[in-house]
Amino acid sequence: MTGSTTPAGAALDALDLTTDVVTLTRSLVDIESVSLDEARIADAVEAALRALPHLEVTRIGHNVVARTDLGRGERVVIAGHLDTVPVNGNLPSRLDEAAGLLHGLGTCDMKGGDAVILRMAASVPEPVRDVTYVFYEAEEIEAEHNGLRRLVEARPDLLEADFAILMEPSNAAVEAGCQGTLRVEVRTRGERAHSARSWKGVNAIHGAAEVLARLNAYQPRKPVIDGLEYHEGLNAVRISGGVAGNVVPDECVVTVNYRFAPDLSTQEAEAWVREFFSGYDVTLTDLAPGALPGLDRPAAAAFVEAIGGRVAPKFGWTDVARFTDLGVPAVNYGPGDPLFAHKADEHVPLADLHRCEDALRGWLSGE
Amino acid sequence: MTGSTTPAGAALDALDLTTDVVTLTRSLVDIESVSLDEARIADAVEAALRALPHLEVTRIGHNVVARTDLGRGERVVIAGHLDTVPVNGNLPSRLDEAAGLLHGLGTCDMKGGDAVILRMAASVPEPVRDVTYVFYEAEEIEAEHNGLRRLVEARPDLLEADFAILMEPSNAAVEAGCQGTLRVEVRTRGERAHSARSWKGVNAIHGAAEVLARLNAYQPRKPVIDGLEYHEGLNAVRISGGVAGNVVPDECVVTVNYRFAPDLSTQEAEAWVREFFSGYDVTLTDLAPGALPGLDRPAAAAFVEAIGGRVAPKFGWTDVARFTDLGVPAVNYGPGDPLFAHKADEHVPLADLHRCEDALRGWLSGE
Repeated sequence: MTGSTTPAGAALDALDLTTDVVTLTRSLVDIESVSLDEARIADAVEAALRALPHLEVTRIGHNVVARTDLGRGERVVIAGHLDTVPVNGNLPSRLDEAAGLLHGLGTCDMKGGDAVILRMAASVPEPVRDVTYVFYEAEEIEAEHNGLRRLVEARPDLLEADFAILMEPSNAAVEAGCQGTLRVEVRTRGERAHSARSWKGVNAIHGAAEVLARLNAYQPRKPVIDGLEYHEGLNAVRISGGVAGNVVPDECVVTVNYRFAPDLSTQEAEAWVREFFSGYDVTLTDLAPGALPGLDRPAAAAFVEAIGGRVAPKFGWTDVARFTDLGVPAVNYGPGDPLFAHKADEHVPLADLHRCEDALRGWLSGE
Repeated sequence: MTGSTTPAGAALDALDLTTDVVTLTRSLVDIESVSLDEARIADAVEAALRALPHLEVTRIGHNVVARTDLGRGERVVIAGHLDTVPVNGNLPSRLDEAAGLLHGLGTCDMKGGDAVILRMAASVPEPVRDVTYVFYEAEEIEAEHNGLRRLVEARPDLLEADFAILMEPSNAAVEAGCQGTLRVEVRTRGERAHSARSWKGVNAIHGAAEVLARLNAYQPRKPVIDGLEYHEGLNAVRISGGVAGNVVPDECVVTVNYRFAPDLSTQEAEAWVREFFSGYDVTLTDLAPGALPGLDRPAAAAFVEAIGGRVAPKFGWTDVARFTDLGVPAVNYGPGDPLFAHKADEHVPLADLHRCEDALRGWLSGE
């Protein structure tokens, strides 16, 4: 980042896309961009991309799309979100060259990936496949704000492609598809009474014993899809009940998160959960489909072939599912270990940044 | 209440102790006195009592103690708290003569009882037993504020007696002793993980299944003491756990309320609960002893004999336990059904007010 004599936030942050990927990652990390506060970073990214004559740039909200238009036979989307979770004492970035790590909020999730994308945009002006570079806002918060979702709704044409790469952290290896996720509230009911005369009431918290017993008895499905073994999970992520310290409570709510393999549709997943908790009041509160790995598609297979290495299944839900909805096979591929995302000690290995940059450049250059 | 042309709260509320008990109850109810806001009602009560030459009045905080000193062979405390739970659309008082009910906040808990006490103070100048009338603040909130507790600590001599009557609502019948109460937090621990890779963690909410199963298997003790059958209870009154919608939670806390019969000491009750939840992390958060009925004491037996009617065990905890701590046997005896205490439709039967007034006057007058 240049212009360091300019007061912070007072003027456009200039990004130097010709610098190395580590320095570029630092520049992005040091532009704070917690969800819903992405104007500054989106301005910087937009300005840097508009300076590249081989790209056609579109800005919608704090989402920036830059496309080559070389008439290639194939088009690929390479996407990353610009926002981060809240600051947690981990800004600005801190480089530990001895350990080969860059520390700081967003280094892993996912400004390292964004930097790789920007490096491709700047350094591969004539890729062998047309590329749509996508930078978007508000991935870390409620889906209603999600920038990729906004783009899908506003300009689905901008996202048309044969294949998509989402540069979420995946240890610089390909993680294919993703599992779906749904949340339900499982509710038990009782009848209030003063706890000194508890036999006059029915305790709804005691009634949740069977709900938890079923969760303990749950055996996860592990279906193999395109050679990848997924791994489901069914977990209480919240429980709440209670009126006052002297009252037998009349309601208890167990919030359960079901992570389901992408061979189940959302309808099938919901039906399965309802059956699992049959006899209880079950309310669906959140539902997002999985994404099939799509490794049988030629574009995906070619990418995996070019990148090399082991392909793993993606257990967590990611925005690749939004591409699946558009009929575009998509994989997760980016620098950093997702286990360090959202942690105070978030960091990215420098080697991951270089490996992703080199592999993507090779694939886009046809080398 | 007179002085109705004076702006509310601007001057002392004058209480007419020569009026009938229903009108006096209304006057007390219409002086709003939510816990920690008892100055106005305490001022009024103090002024009314100081006007009675046969009583020695002491004021400590918003607690008022008025004593006869006739050198009788026996002394009895008759006590009531002046505060109420928060207003709930149930002020001012409303008399329904057709139904024989007085409605409003505090009618039942316990300004009806306070009115009976004030009527005794004013209309029985030469009782056959010396009497200590006690009006106190902050019964409805945390024990640290409790006025009776403050009196016990500051001036235990003021409360010395052979017997105590606490005029908490008990349907105008004698409820003897009270059960003790304790609360513990039973904590399960696990290990956080992203819910998409839940097998990396240990779910603390799932771990609470066994805690709830034990509660479901609980069989209450019902010991008979002085001919009264008590009835214990063990209830989860709160449960909470959960970090975020996508995180396997590492802690779950079940708050359990144990109501124990007065044949158990607090130490015994705590030990029993710890044994019941053996294997779990148990933290004691609240502990109040029960009170033995004490019906074998002559003063108590004489009162029960004079009042007549069936004596019932008190299941809920009340301040009678504070008298037990002082070595003073105590019973609950007051107008109103405790099931309507703290309810928006709180009310007291007019018949209860008259019955309590008549019975107490007979006992104090030696008629």
